[in-house]
Amino acid sequence: MDHLISIKHLSKDEILDIVQLADKIEKNPSEYADAMKGKIMANLFFEPSTRTRLSFESAFLRMGGQILGFSDPAASSSKKGESISDTIRMASAYSDVIVMRHFLEGSGVVASKVASVPLISGGTGIQEHPTQALLDVFTIWKEFGRLDNLTVGLVGDLRYGRTIPSLLYALSKFENNRVFLYSPNQLRVRMSILSDIDGKLSYEVGEKLPDDLKEFDVLYVTRVQKERFPDEQMYERLKDFYVINPSVLETAREDMIVMHPLPRITEISYDVDELPQARYFQQAKNGVWARMAILYRMVR
Amino acid sequence: MDHLISIKHLSKDEILDIVQLADKIEKNPSEYADAMKGKIMANLFFEPSTRTRLSFESAFLRMGGQILGFSDPAASSSKKGESISDTIRMASAYSDVIVMRHFLEGSGVVASKVASVPLISGGTGIQEHPTQALLDVFTIWKEFGRLDNLTVGLVGDLRYGRTIPSLLYALSKFENNRVFLYSPNQLRVRMSILSDIDGKLSYEVGEKLPDDLKEFDVLYVTRVQKERFPDEQMYERLKDFYVINPSVLETAREDMIVMHPLPRITEISYDVDELPQARYFQQAKNGVWARMAILYRMVR
Amino acid sequence: MDHLISIKHLSKDEILDIVQLADKIEKNPSEYADAMKGKIMANLFFEPSTRTRLSFESAFLRMGGQILGFSDPAASSSKKGESISDTIRMASAYSDVIVMRHFLEGSGVVASKVASVPLISGGTGIQEHPTQALLDVFTIWKEFGRLDNLTVGLVGDLRYGRTIPSLLYALSKFENNRVFLYSPNQLRVRMSILSDIDGKLSYEVGEKLPDDLKEFDVLYVTRVQKERFPDEQMYERLKDFYVINPSVLETAREDMIVMHPLPRITEISYDVDELPQARYFQQAKNGVWARMAILYRMVR
Repeated sequence: MDHLISIKHLSKDEILDIVQLADKIEKNPSEYADAMKGKIMANLFFEPSTRTRLSFESAFLRMGGQILGFSDPAASSSKKGESISDTIRMASAYSDVIVMRHFLEGSGVVASKVASVPLISGGTGIQEHPTQALLDVFTIWKEFGRLDNLTVGLVGDLRYGRTIPSLLYALSKFENNRVFLYSPNQLRVRMSILSDIDGKLSYEVGEKLPDDLKEFDVLYVTRVQKERFPDEQMYERLKDFYVINPSVLETAREDMIVMHPLPRITEISYDVDELPQARYFQQAKNGVWARMAILYRMVR
Repeated sequence: MDHLISIKHLSKDEILDIVQLADKIEKNPSEYADAMKGKIMANLFFEPSTRTRLSFESAFLRMGGQILGFSDPAASSSKKGESISDTIRMASAYSDVIVMRHFLEGSGVVASKVASVPLISGGTGIQEHPTQALLDVFTIWKEFGRLDNLTVGLVGDLRYGRTIPSLLYALSKFENNRVFLYSPNQLRVRMSILSDIDGKLSYEVGEKLPDDLKEFDVLYVTRVQKERFPDEQMYERLKDFYVINPSVLETAREDMIVMHPLPRITEISYDVDELPQARYFQQAKNGVWARMAILYRMVR
Repeated sequence: MDHLISIKHLSKDEILDIVQLADKIEKNPSEYADAMKGKIMANLFFEPSTRTRLSFESAFLRMGGQILGFSDPAASSSKKGESISDTIRMASAYSDVIVMRHFLEGSGVVASKVASVPLISGGTGIQEHPTQALLDVFTIWKEFGRLDNLTVGLVGDLRYGRTIPSLLYALSKFENNRVFLYSPNQLRVRMSILSDIDGKLSYEVGEKLPDDLKEFDVLYVTRVQKERFPDEQMYERLKDFYVINPSVLETAREDMIVMHPLPRITEISYDVDELPQARYFQQAKNGVWARMAILYRMVR
């Protein structure tokens, strides 16, 4: 792996390798405490982020590395009109690895062409968020010991959230996974993505959550993202379309897990936090281990 | 101390312990140079700050720790609607100690309930700023060798500045302290705070500075905080209500000290900087030692 | 060197010393990996910057130091009305070296008067950018092995860019350098600067690039800086006044170098990047070595 800009570029074995390394690191983090000593990570966030940026920082710092960058494009040269390519060339000169978040589709590809150090997408466009997909499958693997033969429900805004396509692509690398895609009609998974996974991943599309959840291994909930809506009224109408609360989960198996990339607003009620199925905070924590594994594999 | 969200929760002995440890650290900082090695501090500043944030960072870095966080809420998930609780749970997963500044009253309590690592208030609401109070009493203690039997004048905006209640609560833990509270009538200490200290701390309220300052040990001046005023005109009328200049200080004893939490605007004239009583820059510097002591006690 | 606020204050020998040390560091960076261990750099950027800030950070981190500061004045006390002097006094208490960028002319002088640690200008006003000048002459020295007997063309906005006066002052310290100053008439080098270099540096002023570039050793191109223009229309009219493309460079010697402080917008076309003369990305990289040398000389 020279660069990590799409989960599509990873093979099943590469995904498993990251997952198993993350597990090894979580069990013995002190062994990796100096792995990035003397190394510098450049965090280039052209779009705000808390979780992704901070967990990358935590991961790199925990391996003894150092960090520079910007978390706010307003404080960067992009507002002076600099191209992504030029910014990446500059950052390559100042660092040993670059993490970039950018709102433009394709920005990861453009950036990786000129980066002279490993480049990792921290979310680009509305489609790619490979490290989120890796921490998601790491979370599933920890729970079930496998990444195949899983039944996964995805719920919420499946159209604008970049975590959804990345997770679907990851699950499609493994055998016999089934996904159920629940969203308001206006927020369905894009056709292009469905056609990408067609034949590799069995899927069903629906608007209404099933009355019985017992066949699900994973219920993956996403926020309706206000910032992606051109129309405030449409957001207001759809934001509470699904609210996962204890009564919705009554039929779920106790070993089913509820995941969420966070931040959550109202789509999972706070009393779910106490249920045995709640796994979203653990999932966020897994982001540190998964990103340590990714960085460890890519930076030497 | 699991968390530090209010000076009220500290006993007299705990305050003295911090003060004495700060003194020890100042005298021999190199002994603490690796105390936070491998540790990460999460700085969550939902409200801008320079002095508090930078002195916390300096303190933690000087003990060999590393830092992540945000200094601008616009670049955080709170603007996506995430609750304080969820942000704190996330930060707990990424760090070993959290410093939080937040504009909401009670945010410290909410945060401390879910934090799984030590949480320190870097200023919350209009009432709590415990680490400021600790560096203030450290500054006084260095000067007088005691925290009791002191006569302290507080001058300026005593209503909106969160340093004032915190300092009053700290002084009320010790014996025979007297405070004189000088402010424009519109900016008096809130009644609820006066009733809290009633019986523990002797106080007098007034609008006009006394002609003779010789009984004062400390003159603590605060800025009229423009950002707290709903009304620009009222701010303009009150901002220069007090201006401490050399002639105001003519009657002060040479060993009286002038303190200020900074930033100052016009309320202390620049020619006071050269007087023997000026102690506000030293006070800012003391913030590093006091915060090193606090972090050292809380993070292991 | 206690402070570095103007290239004017450096002698020819001091400039050569920095250049040679930068070269030594570039050839053997690991020897300097712990030079700033236990030291803290305060980055005070009252004006946005990417390249200068990040390359200073990279330089200090590569020598084992740590960093604090702000990259956005909105998150600092200056917006509460604090003076530069007070901010610098505060930062002196928290750090071992200060790098300051400020939009005000003379801010470097004001700051250096109260700084109790070494203070380095990271660009102040429209005139001073001493570390840029040092990395520029380092780049030239690497190429030609000398800083005298050079013919340098400067092209673009020579009025508002602070890199231009700093580079002219640097070149004027050495013998037999000639500069050709090409700009739209509205963006000529200010008279005060020409009168400063008069007699020390041979210069010619013009609007039209010469047809034949073969006598040039260096072509130094600058961006027309939108943010300095009071008038958007004037900016639109002037921004593409010069566009350096392969056909403009046809007559240039192969060992001529094209430099640019970056970011570039349209003033150098992207197909120049592949030509042997392109040196602007290398120049940006040289910023790290030059700033390591500067910090190494100033911080102990």
